Amino acid sequence: MDLASFLTSVLTSFVIFVVLVLVFTFLSRRPGNAPVYYPSLLLRGLDPWEVRRRGTRSPVGWIRDALSASETDVIAAGGVDAAVYLVFLSSVLSILVYSGIVLLPVLLPVAGTDRGLELTAAAGIKPKNDEKNNSAPELPEIQRLALSNIQPRSMRLWAFLLSVYWVSFVTYFILWKSYKHVSNLRATARSTPDVKPEEFAVLVRDVPRSSPDETIKDSVDSYFRALHPNTFYRSMVVTDHKKADKIYLEIEDHKKKIARAEVLYANSKTESNPEGNKPTHRTGFLGLIGKKVDTIEYCSEQIKELLPKLEAEQKTTLRDKQQRAAIVFFNSRSAAASASQALHAQVFDKWTVMEAPEPRDIIWPNLSRNIYERQIRQVVVYSIVFLTVVFYMVPITAVSAISTLENLRKVLPFLKVVVDRPAIRTVLQAYLPQIALIVFLALLPAFLTFLSKAEGIPSQSHVVRATSGKYFYFVVFNVFLVYTLGKTLFASLRTILDNANIGVIINMLATSLPGGATFFLTFVALKFFVGYGLELSRLIPLIIFHLKRKYLCKTEDEVKAAWAPGDLGYGTRVPNDMLIATVVLCYSVMAPLIIPFGVAYFALGWLIAKNQVLRVYVPSYESNGRMWPHMHTRIIAALLLYQATMIGVIGLKKFYYSPILVPLLPISFIFAYICHMRFYPAFANTPLEVAQHELKETPNMDAIYTAYIPQCLKPDKLEDLDVFEDAQSHTTSRAPSF
Amino acid sequence: MDLASFLTSVLTSFVIFVVLVLVFTFLSRRPGNAPVYYPSLLLRGLDPWEVRRRGTRSPVGWIRDALSASETDVIAAGGVDAAVYLVFLSSVLSILVYSGIVLLPVLLPVAGTDRGLELTAAAGIKPKNDEKNNSAPELPEIQRLALSNIQPRSMRLWAFLLSVYWVSFVTYFILWKSYKHVSNLRATARSTPDVKPEEFAVLVRDVPRSSPDETIKDSVDSYFRALHPNTFYRSMVVTDHKKADKIYLEIEDHKKKIARAEVLYANSKTESNPEGNKPTHRTGFLGLIGKKVDTIEYCSEQIKELLPKLEAEQKTTLRDKQQRAAIVFFNSRSAAASASQALHAQVFDKWTVMEAPEPRDIIWPNLSRNIYERQIRQVVVYSIVFLTVVFYMVPITAVSAISTLENLRKVLPFLKVVVDRPAIRTVLQAYLPQIALIVFLALLPAFLTFLSKAEGIPSQSHVVRATSGKYFYFVVFNVFLVYTLGKTLFASLRTILDNANIGVIINMLATSLPGGATFFLTFVALKFFVGYGLELSRLIPLIIFHLKRKYLCKTEDEVKAAWAPGDLGYGTRVPNDMLIATVVLCYSVMAPLIIPFGVAYFALGWLIAKNQVLRVYVPSYESNGRMWPHMHTRIIAALLLYQATMIGVIGLKKFYYSPILVPLLPISFIFAYICHMRFYPAFANTPLEVAQHELKETPNMDAIYTAYIPQCLKPDKLEDLDVFEDAQSHTTSRAPSF
Repeated sequence: MDLASFLTSVLTSFVIFVVLVLVFTFLSRRPGNAPVYYPSLLLRGLDPWEVRRRGTRSPVGWIRDALSASETDVIAAGGVDAAVYLVFLSSVLSILVYSGIVLLPVLLPVAGTDRGLELTAAAGIKPKNDEKNNSAPELPEIQRLALSNIQPRSMRLWAFLLSVYWVSFVTYFILWKSYKHVSNLRATARSTPDVKPEEFAVLVRDVPRSSPDETIKDSVDSYFRALHPNTFYRSMVVTDHKKADKIYLEIEDHKKKIARAEVLYANSKTESNPEGNKPTHRTGFLGLIGKKVDTIEYCSEQIKELLPKLEAEQKTTLRDKQQRAAIVFFNSRSAAASASQALHAQVFDKWTVMEAPEPRDIIWPNLSRNIYERQIRQVVVYSIVFLTVVFYMVPITAVSAISTLENLRKVLPFLKVVVDRPAIRTVLQAYLPQIALIVFLALLPAFLTFLSKAEGIPSQSHVVRATSGKYFYFVVFNVFLVYTLGKTLFASLRTILDNANIGVIINMLATSLPGGATFFLTFVALKFFVGYGLELSRLIPLIIFHLKRKYLCKTEDEVKAAWAPGDLGYGTRVPNDMLIATVVLCYSVMAPLIIPFGVAYFALGWLIAKNQVLRVYVPSYESNGRMWPHMHTRIIAALLLYQATMIGVIGLKKFYYSPILVPLLPISFIFAYICHMRFYPAFANTPLEVAQHELKETPNMDAIYTAYIPQCLKPDKLEDLDVFEDAQSHTTSRAPSF
Repeated sequence: MDLASFLTSVLTSFVIFVVLVLVFTFLSRRPGNAPVYYPSLLLRGLDPWEVRRRGTRSPVGWIRDALSASETDVIAAGGVDAAVYLVFLSSVLSILVYSGIVLLPVLLPVAGTDRGLELTAAAGIKPKNDEKNNSAPELPEIQRLALSNIQPRSMRLWAFLLSVYWVSFVTYFILWKSYKHVSNLRATARSTPDVKPEEFAVLVRDVPRSSPDETIKDSVDSYFRALHPNTFYRSMVVTDHKKADKIYLEIEDHKKKIARAEVLYANSKTESNPEGNKPTHRTGFLGLIGKKVDTIEYCSEQIKELLPKLEAEQKTTLRDKQQRAAIVFFNSRSAAASASQALHAQVFDKWTVMEAPEPRDIIWPNLSRNIYERQIRQVVVYSIVFLTVVFYMVPITAVSAISTLENLRKVLPFLKVVVDRPAIRTVLQAYLPQIALIVFLALLPAFLTFLSKAEGIPSQSHVVRATSGKYFYFVVFNVFLVYTLGKTLFASLRTILDNANIGVIINMLATSLPGGATFFLTFVALKFFVGYGLELSRLIPLIIFHLKRKYLCKTEDEVKAAWAPGDLGYGTRVPNDMLIATVVLCYSVMAPLIIPFGVAYFALGWLIAKNQVLRVYVPSYESNGRMWPHMHTRIIAALLLYQATMIGVIGLKKFYYSPILVPLLPISFIFAYICHMRFYPAFANTPLEVAQHELKETPNMDAIYTAYIPQCLKPDKLEDLDVFEDAQSHTTSRAPSF
């Protein structure tokens, strides 16, 4: 890639970004767009214009708003999870800023004043492997300011070597501080005086098969009443309510159709037609075939038919479809916290307990999977993920190799006409590989989420963490390692086949990485300018919203559904950010010029994420920052990759002191272990210290219990709760409550 | 080693064994020896002759007794730990018996009818490396019945290959059954209705520094009272009572001297001297120099002086020498079990809790070490152990190499005269290497115990487990691997130096193992015949006891101390048994003739250990079988070593199907993981299910509390307990108790 195409790429990206920001500034001021740009505010019952009036006359008002919002505001708007995500972004930002402050002024002059490249060129020696295919298209201007310009064995390498230490220790320091901060955030969130149902409940799985004349509900009750005589409140056995749910959804669907039909009917009553047209639809497939019926009448009839069905199904479900899992409620937070941490049964495959997830966070079908099934599913899923991670590299390698124009021309000679035009050539050269990469990556998250769910994980938030973990290792392995390797592989396939052994591959990794710097510079630039522009301007949700409102939505509820903002989507956001962090970290010392790009990415990312958290996204559950240990581990994984790469790269310069870097690897492991030992337990469990904080009010235990009843089984009145509970039990031992 | 020296070795061992058993039969029937042969019975207040009368007229009565004793008897006599040790022996025994039933009738004919050795000999081809130095002295009669006699690539190798599978699955099956059995034993022991102090207590470490006007006792009290308002009973802060202990021991010493002097004085009142001689001693070094004083008077005075000192020191200790650890008492077993499993503080380095060890099991000085110190100590200790394990092989290799007679003659030519005499030669050849090995091993346990204690482990039983683990890996690495390797190394040092790389070493391991079979046959024989003979006949304790009683002991207490039997000594017993188990397992398929020896070892071992548990040893603490998971892991480690060796050995026979054995390795890991997941939690923690069993009586909480007060701080009367407790606190908030 020459300077022209590099600049084209960065400049085009930047122009797109500026346009999108202008679009945002313009559109976000029009009241009609409020549901797109301020849904979070609207849902919390705030007036966006009131909030904006504080100072958003200027086009950069949103920046001022985002900067001035405190962490408490963020938690109020998006929950602890959002705050933790912002901490993650700002941590990486701090790491890069602190690194840059030292690395840029030190390494750029050190590299710029050496003459390694010139000498190689002058001696007429073609550099090794990597530069055989990269040195020509690589940017000499940038290379001159990077490690490549240092002569082998030069004492200047000391500066690079010490920089690696500096970056590592900055990372340890920032991570330690952040972990402490997040740990406090979590403790504060968990000790608020608000009553949260999940803090009074414990999830019990692997309930053993009870005797035939006892329901599972009865055996759960008697077991927990015996073990926690003073603190046990009630239990709710998980049922297989798929069928009840189906009927319930049908009823809801009919209700919606009626509401819609009524609006249509009312609207059709114009002056010319005071009677109006009763809306009709066909009962067959997609409303296209079958008998034509009056929608309102038909749906009301359907509901009348379905209601007793639902009631019957509810009874059957409660009595006969009990699963081997239950949610057990305790009358105090510390009792629940303590019960969730205690081993209950002598044999591990019975009565396993854990903290209950939030009601809206639960994945019901997974609760009843037994421990062996969970284990087997996990093994199978991990094998599939492993295969995916390793063999996804086959198409990506092919694409990244083909997508260099030279290769394209060779493979598809008829493209010559197009490709040889300088203008088209420049643009294609700038974007082709990056776009190929991004398209490939977009296909994956859904697949990984599906796999994580199949593991038998009981909560959405945990699935997101599992997905994010898989995605991270995928992304690092495939994008970072294979992309750089792939280029080399394709060009020097013969060499590989001749000396295929590990040593060669490691050498190749180390020699080809420096060459990839410019590619990743453009990748980062494209990613953040265009990605953030789209994120901020919300063009796609805006268009969809307006289209829907105009042509589809008739009732208030439908409009509301059209602008429902969803949540932040940590599952893909975090690994993508982590990929950038990994890339920037790994190149930070080799080509320090990448640091400003990284800083810009994370600074803008932080700013825009904060804006979106405050105004747009609505959290769909709250895990109180359980995501953090995962982010922490991934940053350390990136650091380890960085350190290993640097050992290789500096070693390749034939620098005899490069083994001085080796101790960094064990230091990183020890750091990770200490952090894990010190902070993780409070993330895995609720400390009693935290759980025993006073509550604002005496908890309404019935409300807590009701919160966990699935929508389709919920009794209409709260008084029916006991009836609901008794339905699960054969032997009603409790005294009647009225 | 030729057949003669092999037979000499085994026969001599056997003769020694028979003699020792006869000695035992004779001596154990003399009433004067009862304290040596029946101390456990005596201490439990049973009359050994009463117990023996049931049927011990015959010399093999002890065998009948041991066989007829049930597991309940064993637990009553030696506790669950002893029962678990017997389960360990019988498990290994079952594994070997089941293996032998199939392997002996199948493999011996298969091997015996082949002609591998003859053919090699006939072809005049010197076999590889190992047999260069081993084949001549190796036993052809035994080799003929072993894997060595199979021709390379022979289809007969299928029998050996399938045998490895058989042995592995037998091991899984037996281990699974035993783990289940031990798990039940533990559950039963922990749910007995007896009141055990440790079940009401929790050990708290890393108590944070409290404010200067609050003692640690106060902060522990307020913290636990807040977190466990209904179940907290009392707390006892650990103090540094070294000085008080010293004074206390001095007083006890003086008391003993007075008792002794009084007996001497009474005895000296003969008819000829009705006044008697008042015993005197000198006050200086060892009673040899200094002023001569009347012992009784002097000691009484000393005690009078020391008593107020002790009282003052007790007060200072309680108030000013509080350490950052405490034992917290709860008013029910399940409250304590649940508290010991719950995370208490948000930050992990504060308020760490665990189950309290038994009072007599506690290592007081280790309790107050903080978590960072513990971690650092652990790292240091493990490094030292690693170095010890690896470099102990230097002397052992030298000894095992020198101790072959040929080498001795070469190194020390003047020995020729002795060595060349056939009689001496045979005996030396039979014993020299084994004795050298045993002497080396005897030096180690004390060192490893010292290291384990230095780790900061809070209980004796845990130290024993840690020692046993270290000793096992030491023994397997050094004795098993290095001994076989060492022989080869010394002979072919040149070859090694030329091709020093991993592949060669692995090959050498596989080729030299078959050669070592006879050595280990004699090793096992020596070990069990002589070792068990000594164990059963208790010759050394017997002699010491009689000498002491005759010349040293004057008072009853002194006599009692002279025959105090001590406990079973799991720390060295288990790894030694494990070494034999490993050796027998590893050779079971290569040279099936070793199996009967192994069976004999473990059958006799089980029998003698049961006898000793029932009659001799007295447990010094009870860990309710926490040793088992360690034993289980070690057996699996041995199995893995065995499987890896067999893959190598059968592979060396150029058998193309040998990779069929490879899946055994992952199967073993999966088996270990499943066992760990399924059974281990109930060993690490007390399940609530077990803790909630009814108690025989309302627990006397004061007695429970008193059990944990160190001897030197114990108040004279139970009523002083509150005074004792208040001494630790600045703010006595409790109402006075009288």
